[in-house]
Amino acid sequence: MTKVRVAVNGYGVIGKRIADGIRAQEDMELVGVSDVVSDYRVKTAVTLGIPVFASLAEKTNEMREAGIPIAGTLDDLLKRIDVIVDATPAGIGAKNLALYRAAGVKAIYQGGEKHELTGHSFVAQANYESALGRDATRVVSCNTTATVRTLGALKNAGLLKKARGVLIRRASDPWEAHKEGIMNTLVPEKNIPSHQGPDAKTVLPDLDVVTLAAKAAHNSSHGHFWIVELTRNASKDEVLAAFRAAPRIAFVRMSDGIVALNSTIELMSDLGRPRGDMWEVAIWEDVLTVEGNELYYTYQVYNQAIVTPENIDAIRALSGIERDGARSIEKTDRALGIVREFLPTSQKVTS
Amino acid sequence: MTKVRVAVNGYGVIGKRIADGIRAQEDMELVGVSDVVSDYRVKTAVTLGIPVFASLAEKTNEMREAGIPIAGTLDDLLKRIDVIVDATPAGIGAKNLALYRAAGVKAIYQGGEKHELTGHSFVAQANYESALGRDATRVVSCNTTATVRTLGALKNAGLLKKARGVLIRRASDPWEAHKEGIMNTLVPEKNIPSHQGPDAKTVLPDLDVVTLAAKAAHNSSHGHFWIVELTRNASKDEVLAAFRAAPRIAFVRMSDGIVALNSTIELMSDLGRPRGDMWEVAIWEDVLTVEGNELYYTYQVYNQAIVTPENIDAIRALSGIERDGARSIEKTDRALGIVREFLPTSQKVTS
Amino acid sequence: MTKVRVAVNGYGVIGKRIADGIRAQEDMELVGVSDVVSDYRVKTAVTLGIPVFASLAEKTNEMREAGIPIAGTLDDLLKRIDVIVDATPAGIGAKNLALYRAAGVKAIYQGGEKHELTGHSFVAQANYESALGRDATRVVSCNTTATVRTLGALKNAGLLKKARGVLIRRASDPWEAHKEGIMNTLVPEKNIPSHQGPDAKTVLPDLDVVTLAAKAAHNSSHGHFWIVELTRNASKDEVLAAFRAAPRIAFVRMSDGIVALNSTIELMSDLGRPRGDMWEVAIWEDVLTVEGNELYYTYQVYNQAIVTPENIDAIRALSGIERDGARSIEKTDRALGIVREFLPTSQKVTS
Amino acid sequence: MTKVRVAVNGYGVIGKRIADGIRAQEDMELVGVSDVVSDYRVKTAVTLGIPVFASLAEKTNEMREAGIPIAGTLDDLLKRIDVIVDATPAGIGAKNLALYRAAGVKAIYQGGEKHELTGHSFVAQANYESALGRDATRVVSCNTTATVRTLGALKNAGLLKKARGVLIRRASDPWEAHKEGIMNTLVPEKNIPSHQGPDAKTVLPDLDVVTLAAKAAHNSSHGHFWIVELTRNASKDEVLAAFRAAPRIAFVRMSDGIVALNSTIELMSDLGRPRGDMWEVAIWEDVLTVEGNELYYTYQVYNQAIVTPENIDAIRALSGIERDGARSIEKTDRALGIVREFLPTSQKVTS
Repeated sequence: MTKVRVAVNGYGVIGKRIADGIRAQEDMELVGVSDVVSDYRVKTAVTLGIPVFASLAEKTNEMREAGIPIAGTLDDLLKRIDVIVDATPAGIGAKNLALYRAAGVKAIYQGGEKHELTGHSFVAQANYESALGRDATRVVSCNTTATVRTLGALKNAGLLKKARGVLIRRASDPWEAHKEGIMNTLVPEKNIPSHQGPDAKTVLPDLDVVTLAAKAAHNSSHGHFWIVELTRNASKDEVLAAFRAAPRIAFVRMSDGIVALNSTIELMSDLGRPRGDMWEVAIWEDVLTVEGNELYYTYQVYNQAIVTPENIDAIRALSGIERDGARSIEKTDRALGIVREFLPTSQKVTS
Repeated sequence: MTKVRVAVNGYGVIGKRIADGIRAQEDMELVGVSDVVSDYRVKTAVTLGIPVFASLAEKTNEMREAGIPIAGTLDDLLKRIDVIVDATPAGIGAKNLALYRAAGVKAIYQGGEKHELTGHSFVAQANYESALGRDATRVVSCNTTATVRTLGALKNAGLLKKARGVLIRRASDPWEAHKEGIMNTLVPEKNIPSHQGPDAKTVLPDLDVVTLAAKAAHNSSHGHFWIVELTRNASKDEVLAAFRAAPRIAFVRMSDGIVALNSTIELMSDLGRPRGDMWEVAIWEDVLTVEGNELYYTYQVYNQAIVTPENIDAIRALSGIERDGARSIEKTDRALGIVREFLPTSQKVTS
Repeated sequence: MTKVRVAVNGYGVIGKRIADGIRAQEDMELVGVSDVVSDYRVKTAVTLGIPVFASLAEKTNEMREAGIPIAGTLDDLLKRIDVIVDATPAGIGAKNLALYRAAGVKAIYQGGEKHELTGHSFVAQANYESALGRDATRVVSCNTTATVRTLGALKNAGLLKKARGVLIRRASDPWEAHKEGIMNTLVPEKNIPSHQGPDAKTVLPDLDVVTLAAKAAHNSSHGHFWIVELTRNASKDEVLAAFRAAPRIAFVRMSDGIVALNSTIELMSDLGRPRGDMWEVAIWEDVLTVEGNELYYTYQVYNQAIVTPENIDAIRALSGIERDGARSIEKTDRALGIVREFLPTSQKVTS
Repeated sequence: MTKVRVAVNGYGVIGKRIADGIRAQEDMELVGVSDVVSDYRVKTAVTLGIPVFASLAEKTNEMREAGIPIAGTLDDLLKRIDVIVDATPAGIGAKNLALYRAAGVKAIYQGGEKHELTGHSFVAQANYESALGRDATRVVSCNTTATVRTLGALKNAGLLKKARGVLIRRASDPWEAHKEGIMNTLVPEKNIPSHQGPDAKTVLPDLDVVTLAAKAAHNSSHGHFWIVELTRNASKDEVLAAFRAAPRIAFVRMSDGIVALNSTIELMSDLGRPRGDMWEVAIWEDVLTVEGNELYYTYQVYNQAIVTPENIDAIRALSGIERDGARSIEKTDRALGIVREFLPTSQKVTS
């Protein structure tokens, strides 16, 4: 099988997970990762046997002295690949686009960049096919991905009229929590709507969605609370069926002891997931409530990992190695181990 | 002036603040407080010169040995007062009602008790007059008080159609945060609607309100996020005017550097407020947004103190010493120092 | 090869890790795990393919209804095994000892139990051989294990005169952090010395060690700060050599960006460790300081995992399948992937 | 009485408290405060009736537009005062010294500045008299102040041989905890000794003291843990007497329910302290332990307030209005309400 040759520029929270994801696919080859720092994060790539390149040539010596065997520069790397996933900090990535285009390498950006950079924003289940043949796309942010997955599922079932969400975000990622945190407070976003609602419309333009957001004093995963007006009165079973019909949504239950964000994180670790990652949106099935034509539900977004499968699919879409979105999703999900139920289901569960 | 003679049973987070509030009123006398423990919380009452009674006679010796001069038992205290504020832990208070009634003492309960205990739930601006002459009432919880104040204001202005709120609660109070906390997580309520929405209807029965709730990893004050459908398209100024027409609502602004829950707490301390208390609901004026007939806003509820003025008013209503709710509110607010603006207003503020 | 047949009673934070550890050994067979609850923690054992037994016969139906196929009761399990690791909550384990003895099964307890229960406390590198042939031992707690490993290393090198430590403990484990936490505070132990110092003497009786302890507002891993009087003036290299000569101690460095407890946790995840576990004591090499005959150093103890290898060794010691402690340690460490350096070493590191 | 005319440059966490402290003294007049920002912190000075000056002339308009009536510039202010307390951020203060000297105004700096800036570091009980007649001094930091107070007390009693401390610091102040925090981690200082130990020697040069430090995930007050070698075997009563003989040390007790940092903070609030401030070092009396010639103890340092009384005394020393340190301390402490016991003492307390 011809494999797509891929690299990841920026070996941080998102980049390292995408690198893992690429290595798990049968139709892809991770040619290398590229970065500029010399700390433990990049050193682990060495430990894992991944070739490391210097994104800036002038960093080469410093990185080598730190014990990182440098395989070449980003320019060298671009000559050997078909697609690059740019997971550098917001702003830097944009500057690289000309570089990628000059090298004839297709590029995938992350949600920290603006939609306008590539003119296309990507969530696999919503618009895979529209990315075929493009030279670049942007995988939307964790919050937007979750919003598109769940509201898209309701929309596909013909149930969605309008959605209002309150997104309680984690304040930092665990690795940077020694310097970027908030303590004993809650920080509301200055603007209503917060950017996530409008951002979802870059993928699903006709959504009627408004989001409010705040940062809470934890560092791992977001909690979303939604109030949705349905197109008609519906039953809870109908709503659950709509969510089950869409990919990358899984159910969790208070009755299983999954009672807070930390429960799901422990569960992922218990299940042996690499890095404890949860790629699925985890909806609390026994909290979800329907009253007439109103739906209320809450779910958890594991922000560090939820876009990993989307990036994998975007690689297939840009490279054209797979022209059918549903089939790409299936390949990705099987390779990663994405499921619809994490646990044996109680005999009592009936919704 | 004849003063209402009052006591507080339960000198904890709520009780000690109500005791402060009573001592600040010209028409009330704090005869004493009653409790069962001997730790620093009750000892501070001694330091402040407040007579301390033993709620349980058998605790008298233990409390005296701890250095607390006990002025008598709860039975002794009941003989000397007109009204008692019961701020004991939920459940215990209910057992005391027969005792209070037998002593001919009117009783005020807190929101931890059920509406059915007294058959009347109280928020001064909403239903003061209906409490006149009753022998008992229940001041609703901090979250419900804030909900009634703000939704009541919109209702009085003829603007409220329906309201959906997401209440992000603090996980413990500061004094107990060494044992009752949550860490690095977010804990959604199991049930939708959470109890606060229905509880608001014990005061304003015809509200169309649904609340979702969660606990976040901080220990001081709640943040509420509301999505309100108005009866008609309205301007931001109209909405602000509605809130300004109601008591005990104050505005804060991101532009003043009030950007998170901790900012307001620092502000109260800076203003010299006793215990750093904020009795007002603090709405972010420059976050509040109106789009057509939809209103979005967020505010902060300082859970330890917001019910203090309501309890003071309830004392006047039950005792009948003041038959006009608006006048009682005015007396209470002047004595405590409740304001509509905490700070000099910028020349630029125009809403 | 004849394998030791082992079971784990109590599939919680410690038990599930020991179960993983047993499954990774060539000379052991995990016959099953036993528990009494039906929540996600036990359900994951099913997902991992581990036979689950009911520790209490009367829980069997409830567990089956929750979707857990129960393989039998604890009594059934005891008939099929040689050694049981009891990782039940402190107090319950003690009650089980008679049961285990009656079944002729050797038993390993955890540090929550008292030394007196088994009359023997275990840290592999310190006293493996003394456990040979015993019917029961107690693997000491995470804090005590780390203390014995590090002070034992200094003692073996003839450098240790007396040690004074301040142990800053995590306040809860992540899985229970939605209910057992502390928030925005620090909680000193009431007693000096705290129990960890004396507990280390159950393994190394002649240590001169005093510990002070406190809980800090984080939920993952402990930080120990030591002030050690050496038997003589020594160089930093001599001290580092002493630590390198002992097993299960690894070095981390601020210069690699490992600057706080969360850095190491991220690192374990980056390295692909199961559950993100760190079995080693991680000493900051570039923080460690020697001044004359005084040594100061700090290290991190990953409390959930550090006793896993000790329990594995204890299984070998009690069963007698390996009579040499150093060889057992080597087997365990190779199977788990325990290392002395986590990362490629900088060319600059010399100390 | 002639009053010393004083101003405070920098109305932040420290500056606003010193301003409060100055206003509480009979022999001082607060002429004004000076700052450059226009947010709620400076606006509260207006609310409190304190004249506000612009530290930078070019900020005047911006501050006026924000609603702050500006009384003049820093230059104007310097013409009207005898002493200035510089509580600006570290680094800025140093630049101001030439300005102050040119204006003939004596200057007091905070612990963020280096000792070399003024050549004199100040803790009232240790070296008040040496500051008489100087044109500038530096009040040492919160941690160093507490260290000098307590070790100085032991030294004065002839009991101190050497002291080793582990200082667990809060990670941010409450007002900035929405942006400067750490989350769910512990951050050790890179260097041993940490700077606090050596800094104490700027006041008490012959101390044998070494400190290790770390930041923990809370935002209010520090906890110090000390291991002290005494000059001889001593009793606990002798040690307590040594601490009682020194000013600004108070005892707290676990037996009163003061079991963690948050307990003391609640206590200060309960006692009606302005801003909830604790100016005293709070030593846990029933945790303090003496074994032979070794002393172990822990105390709490309320970092925002502990230097307030020291600054007040420094004003008297520089201005020469009071030449006796003990008398200045007495005046300051009476005006602020500093005590030796916060609560009625249990009849059982003996030790």
